[in-house]
Amino acid sequence: MAITLGIIGFGGMGGWHARNACKVPGITVKGAYDIDPVRVQAARDEGLVGYDTLEALLGDKEINTVLVATPNDKHPELAIAAMDAGKNCISEKPVAMTVAELDQMIEAGRRNGVIFTVHQNRRWDKDFVTAKTVIESGDLGQIFTIQSRLHGTGGTVFGWRGEVEHGGGMLFDWGVHFLDQMYYMCGYDTFTDVYCQFSRVKTEAVEDYLILTLNTNKGYRVIIEIGTFLLHDTPRWLIGGEKGTCYIQNFDAKEGAVITANAKEEDEPVIIMTSAGPTRTFSPRPAGSKLYAPLPQVDPQWTDFYANVDAAIQGKEELIVQPWQVRKVLCCIEACFTSAKTGEVVKL
Amino acid sequence: MAITLGIIGFGGMGGWHARNACKVPGITVKGAYDIDPVRVQAARDEGLVGYDTLEALLGDKEINTVLVATPNDKHPELAIAAMDAGKNCISEKPVAMTVAELDQMIEAGRRNGVIFTVHQNRRWDKDFVTAKTVIESGDLGQIFTIQSRLHGTGGTVFGWRGEVEHGGGMLFDWGVHFLDQMYYMCGYDTFTDVYCQFSRVKTEAVEDYLILTLNTNKGYRVIIEIGTFLLHDTPRWLIGGEKGTCYIQNFDAKEGAVITANAKEEDEPVIIMTSAGPTRTFSPRPAGSKLYAPLPQVDPQWTDFYANVDAAIQGKEELIVQPWQVRKVLCCIEACFTSAKTGEVVKL
Repeated sequence: MAITLGIIGFGGMGGWHARNACKVPGITVKGAYDIDPVRVQAARDEGLVGYDTLEALLGDKEINTVLVATPNDKHPELAIAAMDAGKNCISEKPVAMTVAELDQMIEAGRRNGVIFTVHQNRRWDKDFVTAKTVIESGDLGQIFTIQSRLHGTGGTVFGWRGEVEHGGGMLFDWGVHFLDQMYYMCGYDTFTDVYCQFSRVKTEAVEDYLILTLNTNKGYRVIIEIGTFLLHDTPRWLIGGEKGTCYIQNFDAKEGAVITANAKEEDEPVIIMTSAGPTRTFSPRPAGSKLYAPLPQVDPQWTDFYANVDAAIQGKEELIVQPWQVRKVLCCIEACFTSAKTGEVVKL
Repeated sequence: MAITLGIIGFGGMGGWHARNACKVPGITVKGAYDIDPVRVQAARDEGLVGYDTLEALLGDKEINTVLVATPNDKHPELAIAAMDAGKNCISEKPVAMTVAELDQMIEAGRRNGVIFTVHQNRRWDKDFVTAKTVIESGDLGQIFTIQSRLHGTGGTVFGWRGEVEHGGGMLFDWGVHFLDQMYYMCGYDTFTDVYCQFSRVKTEAVEDYLILTLNTNKGYRVIIEIGTFLLHDTPRWLIGGEKGTCYIQNFDAKEGAVITANAKEEDEPVIIMTSAGPTRTFSPRPAGSKLYAPLPQVDPQWTDFYANVDAAIQGKEELIVQPWQVRKVLCCIEACFTSAKTGEVVKL
């Protein structure tokens, strides 16, 4: 059984799925429903079936899988409706705004015997797969810090992503991606607690800057920092280990390196002068005493997400994005909100 | 009364003071005492009086001011002895390892009617004064993050700085400087709590990496990160405000800028593609839409530290480095140790 997809919500992401999922062998995108008739027409203009009602889409026997790509607050209701109509369901991220809602979604999948998953597409981001490959290589030795950063320069949060009631804010928008990456990479029993803080720099209603620390039971610490307005470039990834450092500058993983120390490390550092005093600990490493290795070449294919869902529906593969995994991440997100509100570290 | 200085502890910092304090008008460096006779001889070799005992130095009527530049654990005992001998006293940083000890030192200054201060020389660091000038200019608008970072590449903590019993570790070595800078810049009633974490990356006994968050009652947050082994360059300062961003790359403040957004900020950003999906929030700012202003030119003179102590002894100036200020910072350091141990946020 190949996927015949119906899309609920034909905004930016819904349209993007329509134009890209169809490139995956075995996936047919049949049509879309949106509460906005203009968008239903837009779907028709792209050669899809435009459904005027949710019932019409869910009643289409050809559709066996529904993608929910609405504002975040509508994911649970629509996903449950789709699964109760016997469809497999892919929810956009964040799957839900509370764990309680997610549990209802998971239960709907179980009782209807359908596949339920979440579009955590950034597991296929090139920068992330590169970072994961470097960390798993062991080249950095025991890691002490993993820093995942993304700073926009526009200062803008778009549309409903700026509204609390629709699940706006950076934690739900990008925090969920970066947390999902960390759990997927570091393991689902690795994180012990979280400390998370928000700022509202240029957006009134929701956090447009966040920084969080995830502590682990494996001797390192994870920092995730996301904002919409910082005008100096920072590396997307900075990973520090006892043997070396890796940085990955951007999403495309073109700029970056795995830097290790060569034998000159053992040289006695000279004392250097700053304007107000000397330092030996922070004297620069002698020229040539850092070894730069290129980043490993990886070529993740986002289309594997849909190929996997298709294979899972056919019983040929385990889902890559498992509901219990997104539940772990959503528990962490709830803890982040609690931490940001109380100013305390929250156990996971 | 000009300063005639006697130095207790003629190691790296003691020798540095001897060679530099003497450049300040009004300051005479008379001699030094060290528990190690080799270092006493080294002082003599530099043309100073070498005292074989502490009593000999403290008994020298010409010396009116004593600098304590020993390992950290000896500062209180020696500073108190100096003040009880009627000398003004300058302690190296960290002034003490506990607030209780510092209180005894402050009391010794009071009861003997002498000047007591601490060599928080990094208030005169060029990078710091530049950052302070930028922040106070208001050019960045409301600040949301101040990040003060320093990463060494050698991975080495030298001598007694690697030993717990002598007050080793990065928090006492450099943390005290960066905290002192923050309190001095942001105000002594600004910080509300602290969250601090340690790693031991390449040093067994003490932390050689730390990261801490200071929360404020002024709408921003401070991060201090210090380590001895990260091989990718990070800016010494990164300051984010609602109107722009400042970065200062190094101690010398040569590389850096105050970056603000020009009118093109209002342009509608395009949606960009990453390998696994689109983003609009994180599309790059159009070329030319960042305005780069040079860093303000500042020229702090470390010698002002000694000039001020000299003027304070003469009753002409207030001390720049006040005991109550270093007490605030030491309270914060105690809170940092508590936080690092308990994993909790600690109120200040």
